[in-house]
Amino acid sequence: MPLFRLGLTLLVGLLSIAPARAQDTPAPEYRLTKDQTHNRFSSAIPPVLSVPSGAVIEAYTEEASDEQITASSTVEDVISLDFDPIHPLTGPVYVEGAMPGDVLAVTLHEIELGAYGWTAVVPGFGFLADEFPEPYLKTFTFEEGQTVARFSDDISVPLAPFPGVMGVAPATDEMLSTIPPRANGGNMDDPHLVEGTTVYFPIFVEGALFSIGDAHAAQGAGEVCGTAIEAPMRIVYEVNVVKGGRSIPEPEYETDAYYAVTAFAETLDEAAQKATRYMIDYLVETHGLDRYDAYALVSLAGDLKIAEVVDVPHVLVAMHLTKAVFADHP
Amino acid sequence: MPLFRLGLTLLVGLLSIAPARAQDTPAPEYRLTKDQTHNRFSSAIPPVLSVPSGAVIEAYTEEASDEQITASSTVEDVISLDFDPIHPLTGPVYVEGAMPGDVLAVTLHEIELGAYGWTAVVPGFGFLADEFPEPYLKTFTFEEGQTVARFSDDISVPLAPFPGVMGVAPATDEMLSTIPPRANGGNMDDPHLVEGTTVYFPIFVEGALFSIGDAHAAQGAGEVCGTAIEAPMRIVYEVNVVKGGRSIPEPEYETDAYYAVTAFAETLDEAAQKATRYMIDYLVETHGLDRYDAYALVSLAGDLKIAEVVDVPHVLVAMHLTKAVFADHP
Repeated sequence: MPLFRLGLTLLVGLLSIAPARAQDTPAPEYRLTKDQTHNRFSSAIPPVLSVPSGAVIEAYTEEASDEQITASSTVEDVISLDFDPIHPLTGPVYVEGAMPGDVLAVTLHEIELGAYGWTAVVPGFGFLADEFPEPYLKTFTFEEGQTVARFSDDISVPLAPFPGVMGVAPATDEMLSTIPPRANGGNMDDPHLVEGTTVYFPIFVEGALFSIGDAHAAQGAGEVCGTAIEAPMRIVYEVNVVKGGRSIPEPEYETDAYYAVTAFAETLDEAAQKATRYMIDYLVETHGLDRYDAYALVSLAGDLKIAEVVDVPHVLVAMHLTKAVFADHP
Repeated sequence: MPLFRLGLTLLVGLLSIAPARAQDTPAPEYRLTKDQTHNRFSSAIPPVLSVPSGAVIEAYTEEASDEQITASSTVEDVISLDFDPIHPLTGPVYVEGAMPGDVLAVTLHEIELGAYGWTAVVPGFGFLADEFPEPYLKTFTFEEGQTVARFSDDISVPLAPFPGVMGVAPATDEMLSTIPPRANGGNMDDPHLVEGTTVYFPIFVEGALFSIGDAHAAQGAGEVCGTAIEAPMRIVYEVNVVKGGRSIPEPEYETDAYYAVTAFAETLDEAAQKATRYMIDYLVETHGLDRYDAYALVSLAGDLKIAEVVDVPHVLVAMHLTKAVFADHP
């Protein structure tokens, strides 16, 4: 019996493996299993949990294929992959008091990697799909304390787990695909959204209806082959409703080191332009900068960063601004 | 008399300011002043210096406007800015033994910031040119040991100086504009090209004919307003001809931490696709990876990075791959 199945059998959720470093994580007050999922974005999907603002939730998340691909899979499973079940998302969570126009702050307190992961080239999907028409699969297993994924005998990939999908319900009861990211977040696939990050989502429906999943054990900026190391995870996150603040057009996020805005579009150029505008707006609205000063400042210290180029039809670009620009002068 | 003019008067080149940290820099054997410049890319521009492979050169570089904008400038100088003198480049340097098909390795040993810098919004130029039609100028002065540029009373920008332009002569005697980057390098405006980096250029003409200039004291990834902190500098670099290695289609670079490829194109999407292909080629040719393995590996550990979005008609995208992937397994 492979390790991952052992994990699924023995534990409620998945065989989660504690990261080596200590965590200053608040104790979760709520728990969601990896079976409490949906896989569309829609205001019509009923919540699986209702929590007050400030709640800390422990959510187990399934990997992207919903167990169509496992640690014992072969490339045949890539050939027969059904896209319909893709992105099982744990949730939605109804956050009490959240109203359209508010912002939902989601702080990622703890992300623990599951027992296995996989990376595939799916024919017809990926940034160089025309040049890589064949299916491809690589699987990984993870043991406690592991910091890299063994890619081959002499290549290893540093692990930096994060949820590929986080999002609130859109202002529609249509059942939207989870593949492209949108203004409600979703499949942002931004490898910066690691433990310690707080992500801000515009709220479109009462209760916000937040969902999380599609965790990646490692992913480069771009996710060019179309997949990361797709893996189940245990994620502890905190939700807070922010009222009366500035409205945001798309998700933003921050760490102690930087503030970031994100923008989706059909081209990188358009997404990069939107992200630049959003950061200028942030500086004008939050820090009181003159608009031209803000444009100059982001030219000097704002970093346009590609998140993903494969979640058709939308790519995602972020702009990061180091908080060092606001530090006391030496 | 402003500080920068004092510097220009007292010193041969510019008032260069030693960085705070110690440098393990080889002693320069050759020196180029900031007057030994040209401002086109062409095989027809005669070299100002001939050196053997392995030479270490100390080059003083003028800022981008060739002194049209100084520390005492006002926005009127932006309105009257003449683009024709832009990008005075120190060189070209003929490297003995360099032949078309070889690669020129340029190691940036030391980059010392000059005494002043400026940032402008030039009407009609920049990533959001339509939304910022007015001219804008901010000037900076730098003192010894300064680590940030004072942007305003409560905002400062960390300094990270690098040459915006480095390039070899193209395979044409046409006098090409220095604004867009091309396969010969040029106006790459990649803020990663700081001290300690080695940049590889494909060689198109005998002697390579390397030039450097347009130094930036600080620049975000993108350089969205169209300018960085444009500043004169003193740069100590080493040139080495690499023979018999793999051929490279466009500049590549590396540090102890990562290997990087670059690609120019008219859109970010196209540049990102080229950069992805180049990194796959690098992994296949240099590390012997299977092509699908290389595609998967860059999806997991290769970071697409925007360098600049404003050097019309060409943007530049790099892909970085951490050398940690080749480290010994734990």
